[in-house]
Amino acid sequence: MDDPATILSRLEATISERRAGDPQASYVAKLNARGTGKMAQKVGEEATEVVIAALSGGHEDLVGEAADLLFHLMVLLNAKGVPLADVLTELQRREGTSGIVEKLSRGA
Amino acid sequence: MDDPATILSRLEATISERRAGDPQASYVAKLNARGTGKMAQKVGEEATEVVIAALSGGHEDLVGEAADLLFHLMVLLNAKGVPLADVLTELQRREGTSGIVEKLSRGA
Amino acid sequence: MDDPATILSRLEATISERRAGDPQASYVAKLNARGTGKMAQKVGEEATEVVIAALSGGHEDLVGEAADLLFHLMVLLNAKGVPLADVLTELQRREGTSGIVEKLSRGA
Amino acid sequence: MDDPATILSRLEATISERRAGDPQASYVAKLNARGTGKMAQKVGEEATEVVIAALSGGHEDLVGEAADLLFHLMVLLNAKGVPLADVLTELQRREGTSGIVEKLSRGA
Repeated sequence: MDDPATILSRLEATISERRAGDPQASYVAKLNARGTGKMAQKVGEEATEVVIAALSGGHEDLVGEAADLLFHLMVLLNAKGVPLADVLTELQRREGTSGIVEKLSRGA
Repeated sequence: MDDPATILSRLEATISERRAGDPQASYVAKLNARGTGKMAQKVGEEATEVVIAALSGGHEDLVGEAADLLFHLMVLLNAKGVPLADVLTELQRREGTSGIVEKLSRGA
Repeated sequence: MDDPATILSRLEATISERRAGDPQASYVAKLNARGTGKMAQKVGEEATEVVIAALSGGHEDLVGEAADLLFHLMVLLNAKGVPLADVLTELQRREGTSGIVEKLSRGA
Repeated sequence: MDDPATILSRLEATISERRAGDPQASYVAKLNARGTGKMAQKVGEEATEVVIAALSGGHEDLVGEAADLLFHLMVLLNAKGVPLADVLTELQRREGTSGIVEKLSRGA
């Protein structure tokens, strides 16, 4: 496969490009046309499917559902004007400032 | 920030490393010690928080909740033996085989 | 309307009756034929829709989504052999033993 | 147990009563003080726990998680000014107008 950076950056670019396209021709445009509520709903639905695949599905199910979740999360973030880079920077910041340990300390 | 590939690969390596560690000292080890159900539950919870942030929060809320979701998804995938690369390869495959269009066609 | 006991008991009886029916003719039978994972998924999906309706919908949306959630919860419980009465008894028990206060005390 | 109508009506009355109470002394007041987002989040979380209990827990787990979900749904509805009776009336209406069949027909 291409490296992760390339795959995610290209996917983000594709989503940006299709977002304002024809809802009849593009799934991304269709979701955007239906609004934030619909895009958020897809994130919730796909997360439930990840939960179910983790508990009762096989490896391929979990891969597929995780891909669905990641894809719909990226569609939602893009629609809300949040670059994936901001999310990754936040992950990096937490790691840098011992964020994982900090999470433990708040008993999450 | 470092490039996305570096951030995600390093995070995945950190999760792998901490997974079998001391549940008192590492949040990742603690989640793993509590089992798949608990890790799956966190994915469901964080997805709900993403939904809420998208509908009623600000930019920073959405960034933070998306980071939480991505982090807990990676913990769950790692615990189930699914490399993030498999998920990214699946995203790439769909893109390559017009997966997004295919999704539209099944009316999802 | 009929009293709540009548509505819920009748709905539970209807679900029981249709459960083993023809999946082509009954939505309940169709869900049962698709298995626990599918019924659980519907509960997760409808909960997400309740969240969205509560945050951005009107009164009618919330009523409709709450009805959907309650209905799918009852289908799942029925499929798993859990009478609604057991759930209500549990709610009553918590109330009787100060369950709500107890919940507060564990900081939920 | 008391009949379902009594249990649910009494629970709804208790929730109404405690809603504006002291957040230090009442879990219901505490949830209300934290706002719609927090109450909606609890519904999403408890739904995820129902999903997990249905797939990997025992009878008692499912009873407990379903009770949690029902309780938090009632707290959210109450906070949004939706009487449970409206939700039950909607369930009855659907049943009366073949709502379950109608749901099938839209392929849900």
